Amino acid sequence: MSGSVRALRIESLTRAAFAPFGDVIEADSANDRYAVNEGTAMRFHDLARIDAALDNGQPVVSIFRAQPRALPFVVGMLERHPLGSQAFVPLDPGISFVVVVAADPQSPPRAFLARRGQGINYHRGTWHHPLIALEIISDFLVIDRGGEGSNCDEVVLESNWRIEPF
Amino acid sequence: MSGSVRALRIESLTRAAFAPFGDVIEADSANDRYAVNEGTAMRFHDLARIDAALDNGQPVVSIFRAQPRALPFVVGMLERHPLGSQAFVPLDPGISFVVVVAADPQSPPRAFLARRGQGINYHRGTWHHPLIALEIISDFLVIDRGGEGSNCDEVVLESNWRIEPF
Repeated sequence: MSGSVRALRIESLTRAAFAPFGDVIEADSANDRYAVNEGTAMRFHDLARIDAALDNGQPVVSIFRAQPRALPFVVGMLERHPLGSQAFVPLDPGISFVVVVAADPQSPPRAFLARRGQGINYHRGTWHHPLIALEIISDFLVIDRGGEGSNCDEVVLESNWRIEPF
Repeated sequence: MSGSVRALRIESLTRAAFAPFGDVIEADSANDRYAVNEGTAMRFHDLARIDAALDNGQPVVSIFRAQPRALPFVVGMLERHPLGSQAFVPLDPGISFVVVVAADPQSPPRAFLARRGQGINYHRGTWHHPLIALEIISDFLVIDRGGEGSNCDEVVLESNWRIEPF
């Protein structure tokens, strides 16, 4: 029903809950870990499925510097990248951000709170809202796809979804 | 002359000075930057040449958690990854680390101090010393190559090189 505003509850960001949409990039929940550099470092291995090669694409590394957004925040659109994955990794453990994703534009979106350095990687084609950083100017390392082709679809949602302060 | 110890001076890490060895991953010196997400974020674009596709390889994203090393620190070996690039991006702006690289094992190495969130990306084949984190347990996002093939050469140096406290 166009024009309505519905409440969107914030969930904790866990690897299992986010699995239908992408990867959680964090050390603490990594399954595959081993010592490197003569035992002076631990490698938490292979945390994100980088998917950038379609149609002769290649991975691109950038930094996003995001202004913080205020809650309540109303989500009225989503976007997706049909040609590649897109990862956001906060460059300060004090950064927290809200990750909004949906199985498709007709399904209710879900909102996850990423905090204490949790990063995420949207799998190719996952519908999501652009960055919603909180509280502080937030730098993220971004790994996505570069190359030819149209790699951003946008859709306006039938309902608006309001994320309340928590 | 085997067994000698020579002093290795620490240089500031700049894009220009590091160019023969790889990329500096930082927002402030980025040439290509533009607003995204309706002006709420700035994208500092394409900061590292990810080179992971050789011999059917693919980019792998991991986290390294490095114990801090104490200065003076003696460098007596180097390694290189002949099949791919390797990026290290600190996940806390309070992290600093020493980056040791060399044109080849016969040339004097160079040491750069990465600080205030500076990351680096060793180009494929660049001789370098494993991570030398300073002061605190340091988490880095690492982007390197996964796949078949032998991707690490190590060499013991003719001289040892001592990095002094600064």
